[in-house]
Amino acid sequence: MDIMNDEFYMSLALDMAERAQGQTGINPVVGCVVVKDGAVIGVGTHLKRGTGHAEVHALNMAAGQAKGGTAYVTLEPCSHTGLTPACSRRLIDEGVARVVVACEDPNPLVSGRGVAMLREHAVEVEVGVLRERALRLNEKFIKYILTRLPFVTLKTASTLDGRIATRTGDSKWISNEESREVVHTLRHRHQGIMVGVGTVLADNPSLTTRLPVPGLNPVRIVVDSRLRTPLEAAVVADGQAPTIILTTEDADPEREAALARTGVQIIRCGSGSRVDLHQAMDRLGRMEIGSILLEGGGELNGAMMEEGLVDRVVLFLAPKIVGGGAEAPSAFSFGGVERMADAIVLRELEVERLGDNLCLTGIPGTFGPQHAAELS
Amino acid sequence: MDIMNDEFYMSLALDMAERAQGQTGINPVVGCVVVKDGAVIGVGTHLKRGTGHAEVHALNMAAGQAKGGTAYVTLEPCSHTGLTPACSRRLIDEGVARVVVACEDPNPLVSGRGVAMLREHAVEVEVGVLRERALRLNEKFIKYILTRLPFVTLKTASTLDGRIATRTGDSKWISNEESREVVHTLRHRHQGIMVGVGTVLADNPSLTTRLPVPGLNPVRIVVDSRLRTPLEAAVVADGQAPTIILTTEDADPEREAALARTGVQIIRCGSGSRVDLHQAMDRLGRMEIGSILLEGGGELNGAMMEEGLVDRVVLFLAPKIVGGGAEAPSAFSFGGVERMADAIVLRELEVERLGDNLCLTGIPGTFGPQHAAELS
Repeated sequence: MDIMNDEFYMSLALDMAERAQGQTGINPVVGCVVVKDGAVIGVGTHLKRGTGHAEVHALNMAAGQAKGGTAYVTLEPCSHTGLTPACSRRLIDEGVARVVVACEDPNPLVSGRGVAMLREHAVEVEVGVLRERALRLNEKFIKYILTRLPFVTLKTASTLDGRIATRTGDSKWISNEESREVVHTLRHRHQGIMVGVGTVLADNPSLTTRLPVPGLNPVRIVVDSRLRTPLEAAVVADGQAPTIILTTEDADPEREAALARTGVQIIRCGSGSRVDLHQAMDRLGRMEIGSILLEGGGELNGAMMEEGLVDRVVLFLAPKIVGGGAEAPSAFSFGGVERMADAIVLRELEVERLGDNLCLTGIPGTFGPQHAAELS
Repeated sequence: MDIMNDEFYMSLALDMAERAQGQTGINPVVGCVVVKDGAVIGVGTHLKRGTGHAEVHALNMAAGQAKGGTAYVTLEPCSHTGLTPACSRRLIDEGVARVVVACEDPNPLVSGRGVAMLREHAVEVEVGVLRERALRLNEKFIKYILTRLPFVTLKTASTLDGRIATRTGDSKWISNEESREVVHTLRHRHQGIMVGVGTVLADNPSLTTRLPVPGLNPVRIVVDSRLRTPLEAAVVADGQAPTIILTTEDADPEREAALARTGVQIIRCGSGSRVDLHQAMDRLGRMEIGSILLEGGGELNGAMMEEGLVDRVVLFLAPKIVGGGAEAPSAFSFGGVERMADAIVLRELEVERLGDNLCLTGIPGTFGPQHAAELS
C-alpha cells in the first residue's frame, strides 16, 4: 500500500523520467511533480534535447498556481541559461516554497549551484530523496558529462557454459522471447549500437528496434578494420538508421569511397590490423553519441572488456549446456587473466528472472571503482 | 503469519525429514506429526536405515493417546513387515482416525497399498498435501528405488564465462564462502562423492564434509582409468572415509594390488582407455550407493552429462569473467551439440542468491523427461 510522503511523489517523477529514456540523446532524463495543498497541480518530463526542461513543463501545467507549493525534481534544477532559461530562476519566480531533489547535478562545474540559488531566495531545499534510483537512471548521462566518452552497455546472451553458439555456429535461439524484447528495449535506450563485421557477415542484422510498440533506432556502428562490410548489407542498404563504420588508416580508400557513396560514415581509428577502440570511443563521444549498446561477438566483447571500455554488462543466461570446447564460441574471447583473484568482477549485481532465462546486470570492476570515485 | 491447517502440520513433518537428509542411506527421509484435540501429541522422523520409521517414533511419543487423532506423514506408510513392522498396521492398532499423506510410495510394487490398508480399516486418508515438496525431498530415494542406480547431482562452480579456472589453471576461489558451505552440506546429503583422477593429482582434496557443525563424510569415488592415484593421496591415506577407485580391465594389476593394500576398493568397469560410466553407476548402485555428488573437472562432468547420467545440476555462478579461450577450462567439456535446439536444457530451474554468487539448480533434459514419465 502507498504511503503519502516525499518518496511517494518523487517515485512518480522518476517513473516519468524512466519512460523517457532513449529520447533525450546526451541529455539526462528528468521528471518533475508540483504539489500544492495536498494535490498534484503539475507534472512534466524532459522530452528531447533543446526543448523544455521537466520543471518548465510541470510549472506550465500548474498555470501560475504553484506559489507556496512543493516541486519534486529528479535532478538538481539548472542555474544557467542554456538552450532554455534556468529552471531554478523559474521556480523562484513562480513562488515555489519547497524543492525536493533526488540527486545533485553530476557536472562538477555546476553541481550545487541550482540548490544554492534556490536557497538564496529562501526556497527550502531537500536533496537525496530516492537518490540511488535517480543516479542509476542517468548513469549514461553521468558518464558522458564527466568524460565525454559514450557509456557502453555490453549485452550478451549465453548458455550456462558461457557459449554464444554451438560448435557448428548455430545460435538460434539462446535466449527466450521475453529476453529478446528486453534487448530491443535496450536498443531504444542507447544512441548507438555496436557490432563487429563478423556479425554483419554472418547474420546480416538490421540492428533496429522491433517491439510491440514503436521504438527509436540507434545509430549503427560496425567495427570493420578491413572494410569487409558488403554494400548490400542491411546496415548499409536498408536506410533504417544512420550507419558508422569504424576502420583503420590502412583500409582500402576505394572501398571506403564505395561505402561512403551509400551514405555510410567511415571513421579511421588508428593504424594496423585492429581498430583502436579507445580512439573510436573518443571519436564517437565527440559526435555526441553518449551511449552505446555493444552486441558484439566474443572477440569484440572480449577486446572491449579487456580495454576497460565497458561500463555495464547485461548478461542473459539461458538454462542450456552445449559443450563443444574451443569450437563453441565464448561470450568473452580475450587472452584472459592469470589468477582467479584478477578476474573481472561484476559489482552491484542485479538478477532478474525472465521466464526460464536469467538477466544478470553489473558494473565490471575495471571501470567501476574509478567511476565510483569520480562520483563520490 | 501461520494459518493452522493440514499444511501447517505437514510442513513441520517435512522440516523434520529435511534435517535428516544424508543420514538414511538409500532409505527415504520421512517425518510424522500426530495431532489430537488441537495439540501436537507426537513427532518422529526416520533416522537411520534399519531403525524405526517416523510413524513409530511419533506414536511412541504419543504413548497410547493417539486414538481418534490425526497423523501427518510425508510418505505413504508402509504396509509390509520389513526390517520393522508395518506402519499402516501400527496406525490402525493405535486407533488413529485420519492419516494425511504428502506423497505415495514411489515403488510401483507397493504404491497405494498402505493407503488401501488404512482405508479398509475405516481410517480416513488424504493424499497429496505438500506433495511436490515431498517428492523433491526424496528425489534421490525415488531414483534409486525405481532404477537401482545412484542419483547423481553434478555440482560445479564457474565464472560467468563458464570457466572453472583461469588459463593458468588457478581456481582459488571462484565461489564465495557461503557457496562453499552449501557444497559441504551437499556432501553430507550424498552417499558418494565422485571426482576424476585429474582433480586428485592437481589438488589432492580430502573430499570430506567440513562445516561449522559435524557432518557425515560420503564414500570417495575416483574415476582413474590408469590407476594414477598416488598411494599418498589424501583420499587413499587419510582414513577419513572409504574410497573406491573406478578403473578399467586394462589397468596394471600390480598397481591395483598396491592400492588395495591401503584399503581402497578397486572396481574395473569396462576395457579400453576410459572407465565405462554406465557400468560404473550400475556397480555403485549394487553396492547400495544411492546418491553421488559429482564434483568432477570439466572432462568428467562433460562425459557424465553426455551419457545422460546426471539427474540434477547445481551450478554456483560467481559474477566474474576470466577469458582465456580454449586454455581456460570449461565446467562442461564434451564434444557438444550441433544445434542450439539440441542443447541440454535444465528444467524446473531454481535460482537462489548467495551474497554475490548465484546458485542455479535444475534437471538436465537428457534424464529429466524419462524420469518424469516414470513418476507420472
